[in-house]
Amino acid sequence: MTAFVGVADIVQWISRRGAEAILAELTDVIEADFRRWESFDKTHRIASHTPFGVIELMPISDPDVYAFKYVNGHPFNPARGYQTVTAFGVLADVHNGYPVFLAEMTLLTALRTAATSAMVARHLARADSTTMAMIGAGSQAEFQALAFRAVLGIDRLRVYDVDPAASAKFVRNLAPRGFDITICASASEAASGADVVTTCTADKAVAQVLTDADVAPGMHINTIGGDCPGKTELDPRILGRGPVFVEYAPQTRIEGEIQNVAPDFPVTEFFRVVTGAARGRSSADEVTVFDSVGFAIEDFSALRYLRADVAGTGLERHIDLVAAPDDPKDLFGFATAPVPAF
Amino acid sequence: MTAFVGVADIVQWISRRGAEAILAELTDVIEADFRRWESFDKTHRIASHTPFGVIELMPISDPDVYAFKYVNGHPFNPARGYQTVTAFGVLADVHNGYPVFLAEMTLLTALRTAATSAMVARHLARADSTTMAMIGAGSQAEFQALAFRAVLGIDRLRVYDVDPAASAKFVRNLAPRGFDITICASASEAASGADVVTTCTADKAVAQVLTDADVAPGMHINTIGGDCPGKTELDPRILGRGPVFVEYAPQTRIEGEIQNVAPDFPVTEFFRVVTGAARGRSSADEVTVFDSVGFAIEDFSALRYLRADVAGTGLERHIDLVAAPDDPKDLFGFATAPVPAF
Repeated sequence: MTAFVGVADIVQWISRRGAEAILAELTDVIEADFRRWESFDKTHRIASHTPFGVIELMPISDPDVYAFKYVNGHPFNPARGYQTVTAFGVLADVHNGYPVFLAEMTLLTALRTAATSAMVARHLARADSTTMAMIGAGSQAEFQALAFRAVLGIDRLRVYDVDPAASAKFVRNLAPRGFDITICASASEAASGADVVTTCTADKAVAQVLTDADVAPGMHINTIGGDCPGKTELDPRILGRGPVFVEYAPQTRIEGEIQNVAPDFPVTEFFRVVTGAARGRSSADEVTVFDSVGFAIEDFSALRYLRADVAGTGLERHIDLVAAPDDPKDLFGFATAPVPAF
Repeated sequence: MTAFVGVADIVQWISRRGAEAILAELTDVIEADFRRWESFDKTHRIASHTPFGVIELMPISDPDVYAFKYVNGHPFNPARGYQTVTAFGVLADVHNGYPVFLAEMTLLTALRTAATSAMVARHLARADSTTMAMIGAGSQAEFQALAFRAVLGIDRLRVYDVDPAASAKFVRNLAPRGFDITICASASEAASGADVVTTCTADKAVAQVLTDADVAPGMHINTIGGDCPGKTELDPRILGRGPVFVEYAPQTRIEGEIQNVAPDFPVTEFFRVVTGAARGRSSADEVTVFDSVGFAIEDFSALRYLRADVAGTGLERHIDLVAAPDDPKDLFGFATAPVPAF
């Protein structure tokens, strides 16, 4: 039997454990896996693009555990009552190839994306950061805010979204949790005075939701929504303002903000900051940019964390995803054995 | 909710519908999809190799439906009580990216592999074929035999396996179903007098389970077990005996028997025989070879066939694999809404 954590289970898990506690712990788990970056068998994800959106498979493994995530990205979905992104993922045992754990990952992806941003920001943002601008108040926004408070103590938010209903939803969800939130009339207004700027928009276009003029010395730019060929968020001049950090360069060259600059544009793979092989921020005035597209190691970390955290809590079910004949060579006898009627 | 067909369901489905009826119908379904080959967005599969085996993801889509299969291949598994191959698969809606159907595919892969072999053989084997040699009597063997009887009327089998217990299992499963089975002491003996030779062995090595001397004029060779880099079954000289047919050439060059010959070795993609664009067998004396490695369209066909066939029969369950918030942008509100305690 394969363990299964469904939507109801993960909602219950978040309720029991608390989103901020999960985000803080997951940040550490992802950082620990980034520290052993070289032990993973890595590949860029495999994308199937259509005019409607993209469906991707993201495989990764270390010597013992294989993981993959299925994830879609369909920018027109919310207008039709569907979510932009849904996902699920699987862990398997490298030694026998059996899938051992299946989980919903729409929510888990939101958590791991926010935890990854917070992990990077605690190395790159100024230590005295208190205020974050958020360009885009969609599905990912609250998770980002909670992660940045849990990990960096940031609790002042300046929010802008083209959709006022999204901003209102953001306030409704987070104001009761003690954030100081200012709704802004433009991205420029939101960025003004912010220490960190997070861009998380969903338009499948070469957009410029943040312009070079919006960027002040000392800012850390956490750009999330540029994650597909032809789908970016930043004025490319921003990338020249300071060092650019990425997850896995071969994938980010295809999908990230850096697709809009030269193929040899210098970037630093962030794991090198974690291991001490590369420098992060070098001065209080420097602009730092995290060009986040999402990488499979983060899903690997999140799935393993979830699996370990729910074990024995009653929050996992079991499904018969894998046939288990007594004689491994007698699949046919297993398939045609008499079975009780349902 | 996502429909789920687990192991118990598919065993019940085979019991209700009959393996041979399923194999005959699935053969037609796969052939119909091969006929519209050009309408698929195709890629070779994505493999993660380790010393123990391989884990692969096989994505494919047409303009409306996306499918992928997870499948492993671990040749040492049976000695440890596990199956060599396990699999599961998913169908998704291209238009919104949502996964709609999840199914066990260990059994379904065995069925689709056999149906594919039968589909090819009814175009390539001599019409008067009555006898099939089977080199390898493992998990795939009975499915191949039933498919060849259902589709070509072949009911005389000459079987060889290095493991006598596997041959005994084969007889135990199929003799009661009216096959005329001869257990042979070698592959050469099995091939002697056969019209079709099916090789389905699992060793992860460059093996030669069938030699050139074993091949007689007019034979159709259906070679299944060469399906990974470094894992082949045929004496390469056999490939020079007659036309070689493959599923998807870019994948078969990497994984099939033709990895042991020149990169420009001439092959015919089998869909061209189905559409009439290429010739199949040209004379009663010709040797024809189907270098089968398994291609994602076959899984696509099998998943769609299964989904349609079980709809409304009570053989599908539903699992909460995808979060469905009322407001698609309010994933956080959905995740943190009060939920009843379990």
